[in-house]
Amino acid sequence: MSDNLFQYLLRLGDDRLVLGHRLSEWCGHGPILEEDIALANIALDLIGQANLYLRIAGETEGKGRSEDDLAYFREAIDYRNVQIVELPRGDYAFTIVRQFCFDVFNYHVLEQLQSSKHAELAGIAAKGFKEARYHVRHSSEWVLRFGDGTEESHTRAQNALNELWRFTGEMFEADNVDRAMLADGIGADIEGIKPKWEAVVKDVFSRATLSVPNDPPAMTGGRRGRHTESLGHMLSEMQIVARSHPGAEW
Amino acid sequence: MSDNLFQYLLRLGDDRLVLGHRLSEWCGHGPILEEDIALANIALDLIGQANLYLRIAGETEGKGRSEDDLAYFREAIDYRNVQIVELPRGDYAFTIVRQFCFDVFNYHVLEQLQSSKHAELAGIAAKGFKEARYHVRHSSEWVLRFGDGTEESHTRAQNALNELWRFTGEMFEADNVDRAMLADGIGADIEGIKPKWEAVVKDVFSRATLSVPNDPPAMTGGRRGRHTESLGHMLSEMQIVARSHPGAEW
Repeated sequence: MSDNLFQYLLRLGDDRLVLGHRLSEWCGHGPILEEDIALANIALDLIGQANLYLRIAGETEGKGRSEDDLAYFREAIDYRNVQIVELPRGDYAFTIVRQFCFDVFNYHVLEQLQSSKHAELAGIAAKGFKEARYHVRHSSEWVLRFGDGTEESHTRAQNALNELWRFTGEMFEADNVDRAMLADGIGADIEGIKPKWEAVVKDVFSRATLSVPNDPPAMTGGRRGRHTESLGHMLSEMQIVARSHPGAEW
Repeated sequence: MSDNLFQYLLRLGDDRLVLGHRLSEWCGHGPILEEDIALANIALDLIGQANLYLRIAGETEGKGRSEDDLAYFREAIDYRNVQIVELPRGDYAFTIVRQFCFDVFNYHVLEQLQSSKHAELAGIAAKGFKEARYHVRHSSEWVLRFGDGTEESHTRAQNALNELWRFTGEMFEADNVDRAMLADGIGADIEGIKPKWEAVVKDVFSRATLSVPNDPPAMTGGRRGRHTESLGHMLSEMQIVARSHPGAEW
């Protein structure tokens, strides 16, 4: 059970750490100051949540690894995030459509985890849930603005959705870890969340005049350490400072 | 008077925008997750303050320029920040020593601007002052930790101070704009702030076992648009997205 819990906490932490990092790449590079600040704030929420999940993951593992050890001293193959969060940030439309897909997922997961039997996890989730509510509002507004905006913004948003859709299925793939955690009253029911997620995103995409692709959401493997090449590049950049001063007191 | 006010607001905005951007370059690249989040939060505070100063700068100018126009469509020569904030981020010690020097300056400036006769400016300053109090606490703690830490951290902090010291004088150089704004009850008394600033930073550096260099703080020119080469590089990166889609509705 404690290995399942460790794996489960890693997944929660890694999804948010990797996505938060991707989002933070916009910091200071967006086209609108206020939006730059909003995106960076969302990035910080996610990295802050990741920090807490990884901390209790390390405690659960019991091998003395801190959240920083887990963040900075694991290779891509040991990361347990879904692939959708690791894809390069792309243009702003890609960033927003990806964010929206994850935000709605995150919202439903945290809603359930608030009543997890694991008290610490429940506490982190409760705080994250409040943040996720705001994140969904923010990204859904931008999806509508893009999809129903200029011809160029519509095209960009549609291209993003076409590229991203096949990555969305992985979020809802329940394996032994998920089933064990659900049975123990600790984890979320991601298979049960899927239809709720679909209803919300399809409604917003339809109001944004965007078409959901027909191709099945086929990309998978992140939970087992199979990642796209881009995760390795991202991690090497993210980890370089910590790795060049291992064990530094600062 | 309105041109003086415009210039004064640009200075307030540009110092914070440029430093916030330099700080945000650490986002996702620091050695400690929690510290990464703290630094990014400080960056966001500064960029948020800059956003407001530049907004009222644009209104004061009366030529229809928004805060985004001012941030993304001015060249380096039109930026009015002091040079110390534009220097490349360097290592973490450099970032922190620079930040500490600015934070103490910012604290004293905003303390005075809270009672500016310009009501909007006073309001922005009051909010910023609360943030600056936290910033000073954060950076001074790190200066102590570095200076009085390992041999390597001490050396790095001392090198940073040696390089930065000559850039600190520019913050306190009062010209016609400063004098006019002070006389009108709008601006801060930066010459009067200098001894207070020196007392605080020298006390912290001394407790951190760091030696303040003897060389006079000679670098100057930022307020008149004379900048180091690195500002141009930073701006070209910061401005590229906005400039490649001028006037885009998103």
